[in-house]
Amino acid sequence: MCPHAFIPYKPVNPKTRLSCVLSQEERESFARAMLADVISAVKEVNCSPVVISTELIDSEDVQITVKDADLNQTLNSLMPEASGKILIIMADLPLADAASLKRVLATGKDMAIVPGRGGGTNVIYLKEPQRFHFDYYGTSFLKHVKIAGDAGLSSEVIDSFRLHTDIDEKEDLVELLIHGTGKSRAYLEELGFVLSVEKGRVGVDRKGQKTEVE
Amino acid sequence: MCPHAFIPYKPVNPKTRLSCVLSQEERESFARAMLADVISAVKEVNCSPVVISTELIDSEDVQITVKDADLNQTLNSLMPEASGKILIIMADLPLADAASLKRVLATGKDMAIVPGRGGGTNVIYLKEPQRFHFDYYGTSFLKHVKIAGDAGLSSEVIDSFRLHTDIDEKEDLVELLIHGTGKSRAYLEELGFVLSVEKGRVGVDRKGQKTEVE
Repeated sequence: MCPHAFIPYKPVNPKTRLSCVLSQEERESFARAMLADVISAVKEVNCSPVVISTELIDSEDVQITVKDADLNQTLNSLMPEASGKILIIMADLPLADAASLKRVLATGKDMAIVPGRGGGTNVIYLKEPQRFHFDYYGTSFLKHVKIAGDAGLSSEVIDSFRLHTDIDEKEDLVELLIHGTGKSRAYLEELGFVLSVEKGRVGVDRKGQKTEVE
Repeated sequence: MCPHAFIPYKPVNPKTRLSCVLSQEERESFARAMLADVISAVKEVNCSPVVISTELIDSEDVQITVKDADLNQTLNSLMPEASGKILIIMADLPLADAASLKRVLATGKDMAIVPGRGGGTNVIYLKEPQRFHFDYYGTSFLKHVKIAGDAGLSSEVIDSFRLHTDIDEKEDLVELLIHGTGKSRAYLEELGFVLSVEKGRVGVDRKGQKTEVE
């Protein structure tokens, strides 16, 4: 059976740390393009996407709309009803691909987890979600590993930079321009973003206007 | 036969982007601890380390001392003499472990490569190093993939955040405090570094003095 893949997503005024290089409208389009890339990767490994959105969005995919942005509360309320295995994957992982997700889904443990940059949790795969609860924000990676341990669940950390790289800041755009292959990379290029190299360090320029990583 | 693992290393005044939180002496000790972690990982997968150092260092490992810091020139001059497979791994990858290196060494292609954060090249494994040449700095990952292609060498990108995470800046210390297990993590802890969480974002504190990631 194909596991459900829950994808938390914020369509309105997302990715504020990119405000230095993208307008609100552009950030919204960019977030939507990243979501499309994640959905595409998830479908490629035969998971069925469920977008957990803070607003109703125009989409042919199944969505759950939550007024409250509290991700933990939402997920924890869904888990008791969950039947079968589930995947939770963030919407800002446009480098996610079938190969990296297959490694997650192939775990021999009760849980597979991929840390995000800065201690967050980018992907969790649970074979028995009823035995787990979520505690996102802060050093959630360490918290989730502990929660699994306390619940008697074995866990595996999947070592993937594609799933580790959440796109939050200007310098993260470098990763997307180098390693991306989907809609979000195309959108950045459409806006005029290109790689720039100065003194051996790599940044991004936009339409001739320098926005080098500081 | 165990491949040689060349490890470029700068012992004097390294890691200047960490000057905001570490003195020069501390940066030198920290770089040495990271080198020790890399050497340890390399030995665990039965590679034989060769430190390519800009100064003679006190070490029981084989070392090549190069006066000129030009890494490309040094490596390119060594390759024609290389017999058998070789690995080149940077000294600032303290999250390197046997599992990630095994994935590199297990490649079915002529070359395996691991991109660093920001477009660099953290690890290259070459089965026929005579057919390759190095072009580090800038977007060297893209350059090295192209060089391999132009030389008719097949290549595989190894998807590992442990080998992707080079420690250059203050925020990279967060990764080491979360995922590190070796001497360089212990050294940071000895200096008083701990994780800090504020407004859901993770940074590092040192002995009560805030040095949060900006």
